[in-house]
Amino acid sequence: MRLVTYEIEHKSGLGVISKDGRWIYPLTSLDMDYKTMQELIENISDSEKQLLDYASGQDPYKIKGAAPMEEVCLKAPIPNPRQDVICLGVNYMAHAEESARYKKEEFSGERPFAIYFSKRVNQATAPGEGIPSHQDIVKDLDYEAELAVIIGREASHVPVSQVKDYIFGYTIINDVSARTLQTQHKQWYFGKGLDGFLPMGPCIATVDELQYPPHVQIQSRVNGELRQDSNTRLLIFDIDHIVSELSQGMTLKAGTIIATGTPAGVGMGFDPPRFLKPGDVVECTIEGIGTIANKVMD
Amino acid sequence: MRLVTYEIEHKSGLGVISKDGRWIYPLTSLDMDYKTMQELIENISDSEKQLLDYASGQDPYKIKGAAPMEEVCLKAPIPNPRQDVICLGVNYMAHAEESARYKKEEFSGERPFAIYFSKRVNQATAPGEGIPSHQDIVKDLDYEAELAVIIGREASHVPVSQVKDYIFGYTIINDVSARTLQTQHKQWYFGKGLDGFLPMGPCIATVDELQYPPHVQIQSRVNGELRQDSNTRLLIFDIDHIVSELSQGMTLKAGTIIATGTPAGVGMGFDPPRFLKPGDVVECTIEGIGTIANKVMD
Repeated sequence: MRLVTYEIEHKSGLGVISKDGRWIYPLTSLDMDYKTMQELIENISDSEKQLLDYASGQDPYKIKGAAPMEEVCLKAPIPNPRQDVICLGVNYMAHAEESARYKKEEFSGERPFAIYFSKRVNQATAPGEGIPSHQDIVKDLDYEAELAVIIGREASHVPVSQVKDYIFGYTIINDVSARTLQTQHKQWYFGKGLDGFLPMGPCIATVDELQYPPHVQIQSRVNGELRQDSNTRLLIFDIDHIVSELSQGMTLKAGTIIATGTPAGVGMGFDPPRFLKPGDVVECTIEGIGTIANKVMD
Repeated sequence: MRLVTYEIEHKSGLGVISKDGRWIYPLTSLDMDYKTMQELIENISDSEKQLLDYASGQDPYKIKGAAPMEEVCLKAPIPNPRQDVICLGVNYMAHAEESARYKKEEFSGERPFAIYFSKRVNQATAPGEGIPSHQDIVKDLDYEAELAVIIGREASHVPVSQVKDYIFGYTIINDVSARTLQTQHKQWYFGKGLDGFLPMGPCIATVDELQYPPHVQIQSRVNGELRQDSNTRLLIFDIDHIVSELSQGMTLKAGTIIATGTPAGVGMGFDPPRFLKPGDVVECTIEGIGTIANKVMD
């Protein structure tokens, strides 16, 4: 099933998307009163998951409060993540190449260790919400479509073979980046963590929605033009590796968000680079999850 | 005044240290019922601050529930920070030199931009609590004594001249680091963010406790041997610069912790390096704040 955080008539709630993708069924009408997605992730039982999955296949007239998709305002599925988002750097080979070319670094074609960094997030940006361009300090705003994994239960010392059991689901994030800030401060934290730099959504697809490991198409478009077009099977370090490795020393709590890296085709990969400007609309799409679109603001 | 989070008879509370440093006065006995330091930072009024400061100068027999320091168990002043800790990399020149030497990097003696990274923290390590050595994945455990700044109110686009108004106080952190993990993963996040790698304490000294900007002695000792011995006036990027720069794009909420970097004398700075081993006791001391000591565990 696919879960959302949404607002309708200024009230916020959690919902499940109907299997045909046209309706949102409020969880309250299914007798679940989780207040936030974080609370749901921490507490939902297997039988509740089954009930939700079953309900999402029912006709809307059977569900009290069912609302057509176009009448609700989606929020980021986890609007206020409990911790910074863990991110993978250059985790697709073709992006590793374009990134090294842009930064005029040598690249041997080998990536022996995963690159982990974090993205500060006060508030995740909702589908349709604007991306602030921070024009006073940012000259080279870029987009990065990424598959994000959401941890479902506390993960410590997890063997590779058991990682799937710790995953709640997936969402899409746009790892918006300010390239000069990212590189001139050596560590990427500042250039990746500005306010509004974490569009997330449109939903969480639970782990059973995709085959495991997920081998799905990942794309981004700017003003409708296809820029990134790859497949998550091309991850250099896959989800099993990432979660297992991190969990050997860093306990990952339920609700932890891990963005798995972006494929080639970001703005800095073009010659000359094609950075974002106010008015541009960036869409990030992952097969089986959906699309999140955001306009760059002044 | 100096504020603490502590436990006595298995009950957790907030307290103020008496001016002579020998007693803790519980805030509840002064009619303040903040449950956590985070809640206090977000909500304390100026008159409450004055009351606390006044009370800390009173004799213990006038304060109900006053407890001798040696009878309480100090916790990290903010045991569960609301977000990852923002850290400065190589922000003292002599440490920049030792760090470049260890990593066999060239170092021009110039540091035009601050290095920002973050330290994941599920739970801060208390004074006296053990530092896990993670021996299965860590061979080169190191210490870094740092002055940490705690933001007192939401900071966005703060001019350099007004930074002081946004600071609640200071504490000490030991930015425990696993050197190989820190460098082989390129970005420092994993090697800095393992469980238990954030000893913090012993207290928060409010901003008025030190002259501003704070020019105070900062030291660390391993098994009593002086290793780091410097002064916070030697910060390359000072507190005004750091908070102002970050706040230009990243809203810093009340309770945000910013560790300002460590001086020379860390384990990797010695030839051969002197990393920590189980049983070692690391003490970090900053003038006007206090000392936090932690033993490295098996």
